[in-house]
Order: sequence, then structure tokens, then C-alpha cells
Amino acid sequence: MYPEKLHHYRYILGSKSPRRQFLLKELGILFELQTMDVEESFPEHLKGGEIPLYLCRKKAAAFELLDEKTIVITADTVVWINDHVLNKPESELEARVMLRELSGRRHEVYTGVCIRCKEREEAFAVRTDVWFKELSDGEIDYYIKTYQPFDKAGAYGAQEWIGYIGVERIEGSYFNVMGLPVKELYERLVNFDC
Amino acid sequence: MYPEKLHHYRYILGSKSPRRQFLLKELGILFELQTMDVEESFPEHLKGGEIPLYLCRKKAAAFELLDEKTIVITADTVVWINDHVLNKPESELEARVMLRELSGRRHEVYTGVCIRCKEREEAFAVRTDVWFKELSDGEIDYYIKTYQPFDKAGAYGAQEWIGYIGVERIEGSYFNVMGLPVKELYERLVNFDC
Repeated sequence: MYPEKLHHYRYILGSKSPRRQFLLKELGILFELQTMDVEESFPEHLKGGEIPLYLCRKKAAAFELLDEKTIVITADTVVWINDHVLNKPESELEARVMLRELSGRRHEVYTGVCIRCKEREEAFAVRTDVWFKELSDGEIDYYIKTYQPFDKAGAYGAQEWIGYIGVERIEGSYFNVMGLPVKELYERLVNFDC
Repeated sequence: MYPEKLHHYRYILGSKSPRRQFLLKELGILFELQTMDVEESFPEHLKGGEIPLYLCRKKAAAFELLDEKTIVITADTVVWINDHVLNKPESELEARVMLRELSGRRHEVYTGVCIRCKEREEAFAVRTDVWFKELSDGEIDYYIKTYQPFDKAGAYGAQEWIGYIGVERIEGSYFNVMGLPVKELYERLVNFDC
């Protein structure tokens, strides 16, 4: 039996990411899309998973006047390497610098998720470790030109060519790298009461 | 630059799996499909990765009279737990027994891949470890009834509902669990001369 409870609420996904929309749908949860423009800055002292935790809460806080039967889900994903965060690249050059930094090394991907209804809020972050092989300049240039990864933290999509040829191994959840830790979200939703 | 070499050969994928077809396409490799019916039995003394290694070679051997510009790719995936293999389930009951065995435990997924042309053959197997959370009977029954996983080794697809809600973590390649270790295959193909 599919958890009955997940049919008792109205869910709103507050994310423009097509990957998150896809994953939430695959979980079998019916939802509406409603996105707010939230400024994605965060306090400088935050590290690793604290950043998406802060940002997903900030995104959830933009939803006002929720009724008792509505649950908002927001999320944020960051790539963390060498003690600093890689945001979305703003140019080909920036994307190239990021991919060169990721090449041949381990990095961490954190996705923070916030579940919010009228009188309750819960947020959590999940970590996955990802190892890239040594990427050649040719591979990096081909990827950037062909896939234009300017909407992706760390300048790569694990579910795109560079992820297929470049990711040696991961430890943790693959879906978390795609942008939504579905197993953890499912468990939280099953236990979430408004 | 995309590796020029991958355009020099004619590739044949000898697999009925839509997941393998999808993954090979995502690698950017142009290929034709040509599948043979090969009896999937193997010697009983084989263990873990030896099984798909044996079977992918057997599948490749079914292709005869290859010319010098043609490369055949075949693959086989097995789920290995408690020192035995889980094949494709033949009934709901068998699928239920398999998923109960996987529930709450770690198992190994091995995919063997064989690359073959007229005068050369190379085969390798890649291992990924997968941890399932404790699955409830309700979750198992819902999954089997809704997804009918009778074409899947171990009675589950990592890219289906049960994978989303059930897989706690993996170590290794996610695509290997889906049926094709794309990063390793890409590297081998770039270095494969007929």
C-alpha cells in the first residue's frame, strides 16, 4: 500500500529545477509548482551543508499564509570543495575553472530540504561524496560548449555527459547529487504532521 | 573536443535493456541494436562479478563474422547477496522473497561488459555496493504490483519508486547499478583498437 498519508495534504514544490520536479513526481507525490524569487545570498561563516540548510529555509520563508492542509517543499544544492563553495558559473571561463578544480578530486554535494506548513517547519541536509577522474581540457571544453551548465552548482550535472564519463564513484545518495534526497524526503514526509 | 576515435567504428549494442540503450546514447556513441537469444546459464562455481563477466562474454561470442570496423558491446548485471545471486524473479512471490532479503541490508551489484571486434576482445566487471533501508511489506507489495519488476535482476530497478524511497546509499557508480558502467566503458572504448 502506498502511504495514504501522502494523499492527505496539498503539496507545493517551490523550485524551478526540472530535476527536482522529476524526482518528486517519481516519488509518487502530487504537487503544484510555485516559485518565488529569493535572493540566494548567505552569511559568509556558513560551511558545507549549513549553506543549503540556510537557503532552503530562506526559500520556504517566502511562502506566507499557508493553510493547515498545505505543505511547501523547498531545496538548495551546493558543491563544496577545498573548504569553499562552488556556485553556478556565470561564464565559460568560470565553468572551466570550476571543472578543473573538481577534476581528479573528491568533492561534497549537499542538498538542504525544508518542509513547511502553517505551524511547523523541518529542515535537513544530506551529503554525498563524489569523485571525478582527471578530466582533460578537451572533455571540459566539449562539455561546457555542448551542455552550457550555467544553471548548475559546480558547473556540472551528474546526469549529463560529464557525469557519465567523469564520475568515478560516489558515496551516498545519487539523487541527492541530482538535487533531491528522495529517500530522506519520503521518510520525513511520512512522519510530518501539520 | 569529443574523442574523434569514437566515430571511427560502427558500434553494435547487443542488449535488450532500454536502460543500457539510454546510457550508451547519453555517452554520445552512435550505435545499432542487434540482440541474440543466448541462454543465460553459467557454471555453478562462479561467484559475484565472475558471473556477469562470463555471461557478457557468452553474449558477445554469439556475434559471428565481424568486420574490422565493427565493435560489439554486450553486458550483464547481477545482484549478489549472502553469497548467492538474485536473478530475475519469475513470480510475485519470488520478487517478494528477493526484496525481503535485500531489505535492511547491503548487497553488491556487478555489471560485466564485453567489447569485441574481429580480432580482439576485452571484458571487465564493475562493482557497486547498495544499502537498502528496511522495506515494509506494504512498500514491497505496492512496488511489485505497480512496477512488475520481472525483467530486473534482484526484482528492483534503482531508477524506479523502490530505488527512490529505499536506497539509503551506494558506494561506486550509480550507472553501474542501472546496468552499464559508463565511465569505465568510455575509457575502454577510447583505448580499444581493433
